[in-house]
Amino acid sequence: MLKYSFKNDYSEGCHPDILTALAKHNSGQETGYGLDFFTKEAQRLLRERCQNPSLDVHLVSGGTQANLLVIQAALRPYESVISADTGHIHVHETGAIEATGHKIQTISTLDGKLTVSHIQSVLNLFENEHTVKPRLVYISNSTETGSIYKKKELLAISNFCKTNNLLLFLDGARLGSALTASTNDLSLPIIASLCDAFYIGGTKNGALFGEAIIIKNEDLKSHFRFHLKQRGALLAKGRVLGIQFQELFKDNLFFELAQHANDSAQIIAKSIKEKGFSFDSNSFSNQIFPILPNKLIEDLQRHFDFYIWDKKDGDQSAIRIVCSWATKEREVKNFVEIIKTFKV
Amino acid sequence: MLKYSFKNDYSEGCHPDILTALAKHNSGQETGYGLDFFTKEAQRLLRERCQNPSLDVHLVSGGTQANLLVIQAALRPYESVISADTGHIHVHETGAIEATGHKIQTISTLDGKLTVSHIQSVLNLFENEHTVKPRLVYISNSTETGSIYKKKELLAISNFCKTNNLLLFLDGARLGSALTASTNDLSLPIIASLCDAFYIGGTKNGALFGEAIIIKNEDLKSHFRFHLKQRGALLAKGRVLGIQFQELFKDNLFFELAQHANDSAQIIAKSIKEKGFSFDSNSFSNQIFPILPNKLIEDLQRHFDFYIWDKKDGDQSAIRIVCSWATKEREVKNFVEIIKTFKV
Amino acid sequence: MLKYSFKNDYSEGCHPDILTALAKHNSGQETGYGLDFFTKEAQRLLRERCQNPSLDVHLVSGGTQANLLVIQAALRPYESVISADTGHIHVHETGAIEATGHKIQTISTLDGKLTVSHIQSVLNLFENEHTVKPRLVYISNSTETGSIYKKKELLAISNFCKTNNLLLFLDGARLGSALTASTNDLSLPIIASLCDAFYIGGTKNGALFGEAIIIKNEDLKSHFRFHLKQRGALLAKGRVLGIQFQELFKDNLFFELAQHANDSAQIIAKSIKEKGFSFDSNSFSNQIFPILPNKLIEDLQRHFDFYIWDKKDGDQSAIRIVCSWATKEREVKNFVEIIKTFKV
Amino acid sequence: MLKYSFKNDYSEGCHPDILTALAKHNSGQETGYGLDFFTKEAQRLLRERCQNPSLDVHLVSGGTQANLLVIQAALRPYESVISADTGHIHVHETGAIEATGHKIQTISTLDGKLTVSHIQSVLNLFENEHTVKPRLVYISNSTETGSIYKKKELLAISNFCKTNNLLLFLDGARLGSALTASTNDLSLPIIASLCDAFYIGGTKNGALFGEAIIIKNEDLKSHFRFHLKQRGALLAKGRVLGIQFQELFKDNLFFELAQHANDSAQIIAKSIKEKGFSFDSNSFSNQIFPILPNKLIEDLQRHFDFYIWDKKDGDQSAIRIVCSWATKEREVKNFVEIIKTFKV
Repeated sequence: MLKYSFKNDYSEGCHPDILTALAKHNSGQETGYGLDFFTKEAQRLLRERCQNPSLDVHLVSGGTQANLLVIQAALRPYESVISADTGHIHVHETGAIEATGHKIQTISTLDGKLTVSHIQSVLNLFENEHTVKPRLVYISNSTETGSIYKKKELLAISNFCKTNNLLLFLDGARLGSALTASTNDLSLPIIASLCDAFYIGGTKNGALFGEAIIIKNEDLKSHFRFHLKQRGALLAKGRVLGIQFQELFKDNLFFELAQHANDSAQIIAKSIKEKGFSFDSNSFSNQIFPILPNKLIEDLQRHFDFYIWDKKDGDQSAIRIVCSWATKEREVKNFVEIIKTFKV
Repeated sequence: MLKYSFKNDYSEGCHPDILTALAKHNSGQETGYGLDFFTKEAQRLLRERCQNPSLDVHLVSGGTQANLLVIQAALRPYESVISADTGHIHVHETGAIEATGHKIQTISTLDGKLTVSHIQSVLNLFENEHTVKPRLVYISNSTETGSIYKKKELLAISNFCKTNNLLLFLDGARLGSALTASTNDLSLPIIASLCDAFYIGGTKNGALFGEAIIIKNEDLKSHFRFHLKQRGALLAKGRVLGIQFQELFKDNLFFELAQHANDSAQIIAKSIKEKGFSFDSNSFSNQIFPILPNKLIEDLQRHFDFYIWDKKDGDQSAIRIVCSWATKEREVKNFVEIIKTFKV
Repeated sequence: MLKYSFKNDYSEGCHPDILTALAKHNSGQETGYGLDFFTKEAQRLLRERCQNPSLDVHLVSGGTQANLLVIQAALRPYESVISADTGHIHVHETGAIEATGHKIQTISTLDGKLTVSHIQSVLNLFENEHTVKPRLVYISNSTETGSIYKKKELLAISNFCKTNNLLLFLDGARLGSALTASTNDLSLPIIASLCDAFYIGGTKNGALFGEAIIIKNEDLKSHFRFHLKQRGALLAKGRVLGIQFQELFKDNLFFELAQHANDSAQIIAKSIKEKGFSFDSNSFSNQIFPILPNKLIEDLQRHFDFYIWDKKDGDQSAIRIVCSWATKEREVKNFVEIIKTFKV
Repeated sequence: MLKYSFKNDYSEGCHPDILTALAKHNSGQETGYGLDFFTKEAQRLLRERCQNPSLDVHLVSGGTQANLLVIQAALRPYESVISADTGHIHVHETGAIEATGHKIQTISTLDGKLTVSHIQSVLNLFENEHTVKPRLVYISNSTETGSIYKKKELLAISNFCKTNNLLLFLDGARLGSALTASTNDLSLPIIASLCDAFYIGGTKNGALFGEAIIIKNEDLKSHFRFHLKQRGALLAKGRVLGIQFQELFKDNLFFELAQHANDSAQIIAKSIKEKGFSFDSNSFSNQIFPILPNKLIEDLQRHFDFYIWDKKDGDQSAIRIVCSWATKEREVKNFVEIIKTFKV
């Protein structure tokens, strides 16, 4: 790629420490299929981070895999998932959930975040055996539009789920970014205590690949490894996942990388605000959606790659800028410079 | 693991050259989801090796994933797979194929290898809309019992399949081992010309993980990436797979590693033959199944890990010894020494 | 049931002529599974009615069965259905379509009817292998809200589908009611020429049970009986379906019964209009949705069963009144009388 | 059909009393989807016959439907069914069980009947998350080869299932025939007490169509009507099924019809034994499999339709003769006469 890319947070490889660890532990013999020393160590670290020694932890290769595994393991055939209509499982996973036999019941939201009243509105559609039965609430944090859940909001959803016999599953493909956002007041222990299951994304936060599925719900724990194997998600050399998550969580690497991604995006966001431009969605995480004059966008496109998100009226468009753990300070500066010097 | 293991061929990490390549190409930005430079390069190399520029190549994480992807993409709902009853898809994939909706029709074989007459016997079961319709023949090379297909055998199956409107799919989780066995007369170009699809196993031959699915059949090529995404098999950082297969196939690494695994196993096999013991199956590849006195097995178990395969009469058992690309010469020597010095 | 019911069009048994025919043909021996004389005769009659001798006709037990059979037979795993969000497959079939692995992409409509621009809006969501691929358009005639498609509308959809490589499937659970509505300008031959597949509902129009699936699309014809058997939809004594459809279509019974249902509903509708009340949806078929004062609704409920459809402001509610082939003139009169004499 | 058929037990319509009952109850209004008066009455009668007031009863259209409904409702995705390799679900249902995602693990048997040791042999294949987990034992009574289970045998299987956490499901497509066989010592109450679920076949025993699924297992009872609807098995006019089963079980019609079918077949069997011919399987029910000289078979084929089951050596073949509730005495006599007068 000739131009520097702000298209996504998986354009680069992994943090060098991970490669070093993979090399260091490469030659020893290990038990296969996630029963190796390193996976066990990563599981131990993640339980510790979540402050709950009885959590089950499974490491898998990607986010779609994590989502379809948890959801199909959680549901009986007639049960459905509740999701925002911007939810990744609904929009960008090629019907992976439906391919496991389950309907996603979607709700239009303001900012990609579900509320108790959204969920209630789906429950209201339930009648009897002629309708699907809502059973699992799917949320993302940070969401597909960069927004994050506040503790109060997640607590309300969690309580509502408990009261209504719903499971709560949080897609944390960008959980690092959410937990290091300036406005965040959630933490791994709180999330682990409020959700039946969630996953911590490695792919979009410095790993070569890998998501850590965390399960609190006892029923969902049962036979989960059978689901992993049946869906082709059990890596023979599970050590590769174990070593990566060990590296991310043995110290603070996971959070430092996410912080860098957020900081980079927010530097750009700040320059845009200062220039007087607005945003399509209010984000404090590593994805921002500024609305810019098409002329400025053309200037930026001469040097950078990014997605046009939405054409607006009046010669403006919303664009999506995503920063990653590896985003270069220099490129952020160059990007900001173009904004600053743009003649409105 | 305290004892040296001959349990399988995925106990170690990857060949050091692969780690070096991953490190070398780590920091650059690449397009995601298998559209990166390295994946394209790996695809080009594999097409070249197969001497067919129009093949489609897709890199995925594991063997079960490769099997379920190809089979479900190939079949209509009422169609079935024909497999030996030792076939990995039937025995050790937790019903992954049935989970995609398809019946496996199995046949008992002598050595894990299907013949035309086996396949015909399944076709004979077809009646009409009350029975499934056989459509795809699944074979493994090398098989789950270490045997390999000869050119003549594969040609006969391929011709039979064409005549009978059957697709031929070869599971090559251990294809390296098959192609470097002393009795082998097959090659990548021949396999690519005789099969509708096959995959080349990286996981069991020196990669961290990864299998290269090769598709010749035009209908099967269509929309295969949709299947990949829907089944959670499309890695965001596809470069990780691309770099590995580039490394394995840019020179002869793939075959050298397989040759080492075979040679190691055959050194052990030779010592067993010389000692006068027999084998449960006749294997020239990296898996051997000697029948040994239980006393000797106990001696070996004091130093080595391996699977007891089958208890026999007369204080004997078949064991499974698997060597890998990383098997240490010294350990092979030690193993052989115990056999040689055993007092019958 | 103590009160006379206007709840639906399947409360009664079948038209007496059907019972007579079942009795008349009861004792002879027939080939099973839909290969009997009567099924063949019904198939011949339906092809004749549709003026297309090359149509495939399959008789099944119910509407959900017909819908799931056609849709799953038509689609590859990554393909989706486009439907109004009021579509029966989306709302009232317990996720039957998703249970076959396919996403329904829904659109909000004014009156339960899809337009070309609705369909285009779903096509616009398609990106690449990360999204499902829209492939089949599902419409109902008459719709779940009683509206019907005009010839011009169906032609536009059909042309759009052909241009965009979409299949068109019409759910005709209430097709009789649609084709005998006063505003209808469609016919079986036109529908058969514009749709890839549709079904003619018997259950809601005088049969004990039974829907006739009509397939024009050659690809969809292939192996359809395998789908029938696999989904448990192939009745051993297929004659029971054959005799019923023979009776409905050997003369004009099917249309006469539908006409009666429409006429009954429209008599009630007329009285409501004359009283000055409005309707939640504009229907000329056998389902009407008048908005009435809650006081009048209570009066009606003392004598009749029907569904409250939607609570409105100002002490009004929409109710659903459904008439059937068997609705009694006397009960319609009584119903109308209560409306006429109501003191506003 | 010009020749009288002994091909199967679903060639004729239904017993006349059923048609009379359908006519008698035709015009009244009833609640739909199996919540009508007649279905409730049939459910009450069947609970009474099984001497267990807490059984759940669901009436569905056919045997494949009944099998796939019970099995998919009973199993989690990674669980499998154990069946004889002659089992109807394995051989003649077009992969209906696999289409719901589940593997059938088959065993070769002598006579179509499973034993505890057969089941144990499948349990022995279970290892861990790499294999499916056997969970449900499927048996048929009478079996596909006409044999029947004795009380002692069913008790042993039932006990074994309880001990091993397996569900027991009995396919009773021909349960009437089994329970009226001369060697039978089972009864509905015993079967209902030993099985988690079973079904009583109406289609092959005098009904137009219909099978009564009986569920004892509490977990399996839960949400079963959701499964019915989702699989297209919930008939809108459930009364049609209710009336039929009411008629079959209000007195002894069900058993009388089955007795007639058995008696007819056994008259033929007796004549064959007396002539000195043997049988492919030892049957006391309504299906017999005599091995006859091909010359005699040709003589019979001039007057009768039946299936050739298996070509034998020495100019002999096994044929399948099936009698039904409607088999005519005169035709049985004619059949026997040809056998008696055959010159060996």
